[in-house]
Order: sequence, then structure tokens, then C-alpha cells
Amino acid sequence: MRRAIELAKKGEGFTNPNPMVGAVIVKDGRIIGEGYHERYGGFHAERNALKNAVEPVCGADMYVTLEPCSHHGKQPPCCEAVGDAGIKNVYIGSDDPNPLVSGKGIEYLKSCGVNVRTNILKDECDAINKIFFHYITTKTPYTIMKAGMTIDGKCATRTGNSKWITNELSREDVHKTRRRVAGIMVGINTVLEDNPMLNCRLENPKNPIRIICDSKLRIPLDCNIVKTANEIPTIIATVSGDIEKTKQLENLGIDIIRTTGERVNLKALMQELGQRGIDSVLLEGGNTLNASMLEAGLVNKLEIYIAPKIIGGANSKPVVGGEGVALVKDAYMFSSPKVTMFGEDIKIEYERE
Amino acid sequence: MRRAIELAKKGEGFTNPNPMVGAVIVKDGRIIGEGYHERYGGFHAERNALKNAVEPVCGADMYVTLEPCSHHGKQPPCCEAVGDAGIKNVYIGSDDPNPLVSGKGIEYLKSCGVNVRTNILKDECDAINKIFFHYITTKTPYTIMKAGMTIDGKCATRTGNSKWITNELSREDVHKTRRRVAGIMVGINTVLEDNPMLNCRLENPKNPIRIICDSKLRIPLDCNIVKTANEIPTIIATVSGDIEKTKQLENLGIDIIRTTGERVNLKALMQELGQRGIDSVLLEGGNTLNASMLEAGLVNKLEIYIAPKIIGGANSKPVVGGEGVALVKDAYMFSSPKVTMFGEDIKIEYERE
Repeated sequence: MRRAIELAKKGEGFTNPNPMVGAVIVKDGRIIGEGYHERYGGFHAERNALKNAVEPVCGADMYVTLEPCSHHGKQPPCCEAVGDAGIKNVYIGSDDPNPLVSGKGIEYLKSCGVNVRTNILKDECDAINKIFFHYITTKTPYTIMKAGMTIDGKCATRTGNSKWITNELSREDVHKTRRRVAGIMVGINTVLEDNPMLNCRLENPKNPIRIICDSKLRIPLDCNIVKTANEIPTIIATVSGDIEKTKQLENLGIDIIRTTGERVNLKALMQELGQRGIDSVLLEGGNTLNASMLEAGLVNKLEIYIAPKIIGGANSKPVVGGEGVALVKDAYMFSSPKVTMFGEDIKIEYERE
Repeated sequence: MRRAIELAKKGEGFTNPNPMVGAVIVKDGRIIGEGYHERYGGFHAERNALKNAVEPVCGADMYVTLEPCSHHGKQPPCCEAVGDAGIKNVYIGSDDPNPLVSGKGIEYLKSCGVNVRTNILKDECDAINKIFFHYITTKTPYTIMKAGMTIDGKCATRTGNSKWITNELSREDVHKTRRRVAGIMVGINTVLEDNPMLNCRLENPKNPIRIICDSKLRIPLDCNIVKTANEIPTIIATVSGDIEKTKQLENLGIDIIRTTGERVNLKALMQELGQRGIDSVLLEGGNTLNASMLEAGLVNKLEIYIAPKIIGGANSKPVVGGEGVALVKDAYMFSSPKVTMFGEDIKIEYERE
């Protein structure tokens, strides 16, 4: 199963909004076939493993990280392929959280006379598909709030200076995350202050869709985001009824999502993004949007980079703005901290409780 | 030498303002004697090792974490004892940073015909006496700024609520630090807001001297600190000329240190504390004092406890107040982060660069 997990991870960044899955076929203690879900729309892991098998699979065992699917999607159901192939024992990691699939693949296999054992290294198997499990059950993107900050929680000085808080290794890691997610989201203030590109600047880039929350449609037509909207898909979420600006932006290749309310209704926005197949969003500030996303209960994970410096000052820019909670007991709670070092920067990942 | 380092650490909290030192005597590959500096005023490590030796030490080797002293203090010089004992080889970890001693112990040993090798596991040996090395070279206390905060760098909400940010394990660890240091320092606002005891609440407590920075002598006579000043030594640093309040406080057992200036001159205060033999201070806030100590260049180490929660809000209380620096390049820089987990709280220790 460990080998199957390794294989599954090879699909990272290419299977969305499908899960990453790996499969290994074992006969007489030897691996005779392996495969993984390589890209969205391609063969599933089980079929790839069967296809790659170097000897007959009849009577062999299969280890697969996720319950084989039982429905007709882009591909015919895997449970049929596995059942038909004469596999004797199937060892499964995660249950499929998709209500269309859950349990049915296992039932089908059993009806073919296959022995099925479930929950094999379940936690490790579940961990590789956090995004998929969230997306398939809620139909909204799994949202990672990223922040680069000082030890004292600041992302800019009182004068607005913010270059650079974190070191190059940390910033490169952020670009790796950008390559993995389907969307990247910022508030309009970040666009006005930093004029960012929000692209992935690695050797093999894969740009996420850019999503700008801009309630009043204040985005300048000559900013980097708008200028590159024909190359990198870009969505602006707004409540503004400014028809002319909307048309100008649409003509420049930007997709406008309009919600009701005084400010962008973030829950409605996330549902709309989910509808469009965006299974994951990297939230990169600013602090007002961070606060609104936390308040709306829409943050699933934190990725915090702490640089070894202190800015100090009550008027320096905190990573999370807004009102803040009144009592410690009402704070937004996280769990399962995971620490990674990037030089002398510390990355801490948390799951939302 | 590793054994000598282990032994040295046994003296932790009891040798101040002397260093922690361990010594091991080896003959024919067997340890025949070991000792450490157990408490201030007691025998030094080398003498304890010689005293504890279970066979004649003539011709044996000695491993000692710090260069043997050569001056007459509370104890006669160790280099004489080692030279007289007929030890053949001496392996030394740290050089002695004390200008009265440095190099002289080694010279004396060589003049007795002892072979001396230095810098053995020097980094590890230096690490156990950071406080001593700082104190002996600057004559001011080694200052550790401690903060318990949320992921976003807050130590209280906008309403002042701060109980509890960190978990019990973290708070217990702070009490262990309190047991190790000579002094604990807070600003007057912390006294007015929290009415703390600032004592060590462990099973074998050893209370540090309490130091309150109170420029205007606002401390209430009925607060916990003042009420317990007869049991736990307490210093108030002020610039106030209020003779009556000074007398009242002195009558209650409090020691007043007066500096010139509008607010307490922190550099002068630290020099005065150094004069009194206080080699280490744990700075426990609040955020105004933290900022002033950083500005004055008086913070040597950070001990930050990060609880897995977010308070948010521009008006919530940051761990470091004051003005803050205007540019990121002028931020207070730290290095050598060391991470320890306390449940889901993360402790990060940094050295000031």
C-alpha cells in the first residue's frame, strides 16, 4: 500500500477535480503491475495497473488507495475492470466520499467473488486526497489561507513596506503550492497595493485561475492582472452594477461573478467556483479578505511562513484584519500543526478544526 | 566530553551567576572520577571530580567543559588543583570568556607539564553557558523575551481578554524557565491588568527576583506583587520622585531603583541589575515594555509559544507594541530557530542576531 500511495502522489496537480489514486498488483510476493491516475480524463489507477501488468493478473492481489469507482464518468467503472480481471483479493485505503460511489464499488467486487479488505493505511490514504474529499462532499473549493509574516504576526510595516518578509526558499514553496491548486484568490487592496501577477513562477509553471474579490469594481484596467487576463484565466467577484466597467473587463477576457449583498457574498462565491470545477483555492490575503473568509467559515487550512524578525507596532499590518473576536474562547481554532523549515523561516501548516 | 556536558547541566539554576561546568577523569578508558559545579559558592567541577575519584588520578586524563579557572574567587584556582594532581592530559570545551581568567588557566596547566587540548565539542559546551558568557562579558543580564500568542501574533483580544491563549503544557514550561532565571520583568500595565504573582508554581519552586518597570510609580499597594514582597524579592524601577510612595513601598520590603529620564532608562536599569548579580531576566511583557527592550537592543533571546488559534483584528493586542519599524529591512533580526511542541502549541526559540 505504501507503494500505491507513492504512485498516487505522482498525479499531484494534474488530476483535479478528480482524486489522486495509486494501485499495485501483487502476485506471489512480487509486484507485477502498478499504475496511478495520471491526469483528469485519463485512465484511472486500477486500469493503468491492469494495463501495465507484466504477467496474468488472475488470482493476484490488488492494493488501491481509494475504493474503486462504480459509476460511468469520463471512464467506465473500475470495479468492473477489477472484477472481470480475476483479481482475488483487493485491499482498499480510503472509502470513496462521493455519494454516487461510496460502498458500491466494494459491493460490486464482492458480488464478483473478490475478497475485499478496507481501511488499509486509511489515514495516509485519506491525507493525499483532502482536497478531493472536501470538494466532493461540499461542492466548494478546499481553501488554504497562506501568509508570510514576522514572528509578531505582521505582513507589512506601518508604512506599507512588505518586501521581503520571508526568504526565497519560502517564496519558492508558495509557488509550488500555486502549481498544485486550481485557484488563487486575493482582495482588491492587494491588487491596488502590490500590482501582483499571481502566477506560478517555477520552471514548469501551471497557473491557477486568479480570483479577485473587488466589491466596488475598483480594479485598474492597466494593472498586471487585467493586462494578462488573456493568458491566465481571471475571475473578478463583485457586487457592483457598473455595466460599462464590467463590459470593459469582459472584453479584456475577464470573467465577472456577481453576488448579492453590500460586499461580495463569499459563501455564494465559493459555491459558484465549485460549480466551475475549482476544487481548491489558495487565499493570499490581504488581511481584510482573510478576516472575512475566516468569519464565513471558509478556511480549511493555514500555511504560515514565519520569518525570523520582529516589526512591532500597533499600526503595522497584521495578517488577519477585521474586528477580531472579543473573547479568546471564540478564537478560530486550528489543529494538527506540521512544521517545516525553509532556511531560518518556519512554515507551519494547520487544519481548521 | 558528552558525559561532562551532561554533568554540567545538573547545576542548572543553582550556579548563577557562575557558569555550569562538568568534569570527567578517565584512566585506561575507564571513568574514575566525575563532578560538576553544583551550586554558587561550592566546589568547582574539577575539584569535585578529583575529590570523587575512586583511584589515584596521577597520569589520568580530564575532560572539562570550561577552561579551568586561574583566579582566587570563592574557591582557589582549579588549574592549580588539576596541575598538582598529576593529570596528564586536559581536554577543554569552552574558553573562559572572563577577562580575569581567559587563557591563564591553560598557560598554568602547560607550565605544570600538562598536555592541553582545547575546543573539544566547543559549540555544545558554549551552548550550556550562554547566560554566563553574556553576563561576564557585558555585566548585564541575559534577557529572554517570552510571549504566549495566537498564530496571528496576538496576546489578547480587543476587549483585553487573554485567558488562556496557550495551553497548560506551555504555561508549565514557562514556570520551568522562571525557575532557571535570576529575575523576571514586566511593565506596570501587566500588573494593573492581570495582578499577577510572577512566581514559580512548580513542585520545587525557586522564585526569581521580580522587577517591575513603573515609571510613574502607579503600582497599587494592595496588588499581589506588593503584598508578597516580603516573601519574594521585588524591585521596582521608576523615574518618579514621589518620596511618600517610595517610602511606603520600601517599608513593604520593595527595593526601588531610580533612573534618570522621562521613562525608566532600560540600559541603566540592566546595568544596575547586573551589579546586583542578576545574570538573567525573563521579560514577560506587556507589549510596550517588549517594544522598548527591543529598541534598546536589550533582548538576547525569544521564547515564543504559538497557540493553534486566530484572534484577528487590527485592535487586538499584539505581542510587541510601540511604533514598530518603518521598513522591513530595519526589523529586529533573530536566528537559529529551535522548535519544540507542547501538545498543539509550538514553542520557537530564537537568538538575537
